[in-house]
Amino acid sequence: MSQLDFRIMFQSGGSRIGKLRTAHGEFSTPVFMPVGTQATVKSLLPQDVWDTGSQIILCNAYHLFLRPGPDIVRAAGGLHKFMDWPGSILTDSGGFQIMSLGHFVSISDQEAVFRSHIDGSLVRFSPEDSVQVQAALGADIIMCLDHLTQWPVSYDLAAEAMNRTLLWARRAKQVEIAPHRSLFGIVQGSVYPELRKQCALELAALDFPGYAVGGLSVGESKQKFYDILHYTCEFLPVDKPRYLMGVGHPVDLVEGVMAGIDMFDCVLPTRNARHGRAFTFAGPLNLKNARHATEFSPIEEGCDCRACKSFSRAYIRHLFSAKESLAWTLVSIHNIRFFQRLMDRIRQSVFDGTLKQLRRQMEMLYPI
Amino acid sequence: MSQLDFRIMFQSGGSRIGKLRTAHGEFSTPVFMPVGTQATVKSLLPQDVWDTGSQIILCNAYHLFLRPGPDIVRAAGGLHKFMDWPGSILTDSGGFQIMSLGHFVSISDQEAVFRSHIDGSLVRFSPEDSVQVQAALGADIIMCLDHLTQWPVSYDLAAEAMNRTLLWARRAKQVEIAPHRSLFGIVQGSVYPELRKQCALELAALDFPGYAVGGLSVGESKQKFYDILHYTCEFLPVDKPRYLMGVGHPVDLVEGVMAGIDMFDCVLPTRNARHGRAFTFAGPLNLKNARHATEFSPIEEGCDCRACKSFSRAYIRHLFSAKESLAWTLVSIHNIRFFQRLMDRIRQSVFDGTLKQLRRQMEMLYPI
Repeated sequence: MSQLDFRIMFQSGGSRIGKLRTAHGEFSTPVFMPVGTQATVKSLLPQDVWDTGSQIILCNAYHLFLRPGPDIVRAAGGLHKFMDWPGSILTDSGGFQIMSLGHFVSISDQEAVFRSHIDGSLVRFSPEDSVQVQAALGADIIMCLDHLTQWPVSYDLAAEAMNRTLLWARRAKQVEIAPHRSLFGIVQGSVYPELRKQCALELAALDFPGYAVGGLSVGESKQKFYDILHYTCEFLPVDKPRYLMGVGHPVDLVEGVMAGIDMFDCVLPTRNARHGRAFTFAGPLNLKNARHATEFSPIEEGCDCRACKSFSRAYIRHLFSAKESLAWTLVSIHNIRFFQRLMDRIRQSVFDGTLKQLRRQMEMLYPI
Repeated sequence: MSQLDFRIMFQSGGSRIGKLRTAHGEFSTPVFMPVGTQATVKSLLPQDVWDTGSQIILCNAYHLFLRPGPDIVRAAGGLHKFMDWPGSILTDSGGFQIMSLGHFVSISDQEAVFRSHIDGSLVRFSPEDSVQVQAALGADIIMCLDHLTQWPVSYDLAAEAMNRTLLWARRAKQVEIAPHRSLFGIVQGSVYPELRKQCALELAALDFPGYAVGGLSVGESKQKFYDILHYTCEFLPVDKPRYLMGVGHPVDLVEGVMAGIDMFDCVLPTRNARHGRAFTFAGPLNLKNARHATEFSPIEEGCDCRACKSFSRAYIRHLFSAKESLAWTLVSIHNIRFFQRLMDRIRQSVFDGTLKQLRRQMEMLYPI
């Protein structure tokens, strides 16, 4: 059991290669975290997630707060034991879900009020509650509750949300948590540079062990997203891990690393998998497509994932046609492995100074 | 590659302990075969099926004939390679599905005619077609196409179906198949002893490498089912494997072995799993039940399955509440392992002469 340990091993431009260690193990950064919203990476046994090379996953505090509830998870011995996950766990604070699941009731400096999407009950959720819930869940990395805005949003509303995020970060930091858990601050401020700068600097002054950039890729243009991301990173402490929340698309991952990001999470690999869409280094595939019915090659030649080692596109296409859930399992395994292989390439490209070429390649394969 | 090899190692009363060997391995009998209707045991990777102690599975020729079609499976290298299953495969002939899926159009001595449940197209299916389809799929054990009747059925209709089953068995036997595949005959005749006797004796005269008892547990009383099963087995060759199709319930398995049955298949462990119903040697559990929300013990103490080794009832109950497909996976693993442990106990009880006690125990836990 120990504090979060972050070491930067190599830097090139703004990009960094490092090692992040939590009480549940050490992994290389930049890192991609698969999403296990409800304490399960959908349709996968934890061993199958681990075998993709994933060593840290994200779980959603909002979902787990409502169901099964932190008391049950704590009584089970914490999330790691509950879901049998040997690696590290980061929980998000619920800020995104409260604003995006359509059950938002009101938000004040005191707290957020929303209706449960499960039973419609009225729930009050303060920044202190959020930290306590995440600690009860047993997360290695805990996120401050933030006030997120979608795009478009006026400057005034974005400023209000950013100031509330700062206020809540200060309150979250007052909550005592065990020393082997780490609380990250979240930078908000929409696409307004001065708001982002203010938020980043004020959070930095609070000395968090890590910082996230939130509220990006929420409707603004890609160029705006990238510009604000690069700008924001300039004001974040260089010696602390930086996490770009809910991102992303293969090009976004490369761009994020160019901006100096160390951590990513996204539902893309698993959600796309359930719709038959596979990622490969030769471009995307829709495995439901009839042409795959007679293709006896794997999803991707040369891929070392369990799905590609043993199963053909024809088999997986059959499973989708027959509505068999093993289809989701196999493509999820492949897609998460693709994201981990992409992170390998990204880290290698930082060393080699070839990140721009990798970005161009990804942009050709996965146009933004 | 070799002919089916069946050796009886031990007999007690009508019950037998044996070894059955196909081109894909040897296993102990009496044996339970999990069902992989559409070339997948629902929600499980093949390795997880294998790890339950299952060494032979059943796939449905009817479903695979319609989708993806035998040409695709053959081009993939056969079912074993298509679905990455290292053990043996028995395919059923389609007789049951043609009569039970509600798309039956007509049946004559020539062939069965039905509408595809997938696209509504009219399909003609002869006993020769059935063998050829199963051979193209690559099954180790192939079943004759039979004319099955549900209960109630008149003597005359049952006699007609039985005679057609015999006629079709003779025709199926004329189809050339590779020597490493084996064709089993199926005894029909509903609950009419003289029809069952005639069918069994005439099939025996055809010298099949194995025999199935079909058309039982289709609506008749349990007592009638058991009486006819015992009676039918008396007329089957003692040196050939006997397979009771689509059965069954834990008590049925014990009763079947008492009657001299060597092989069983049933969807019960996997279908019940998807509804949250688990089998244990302390009786059934409904894992959706609220009381399991705070039970941190495994589904069954002492069970060596992957689900029980790593996950609690509380976690599995959460997965059901959250509608996560991992719930199906975990309970399917457990339930199939329960059936394999029950088969272990059944084989041990044959050796020990305690089958009646085991039957009473199962009857108390799983009343019929």
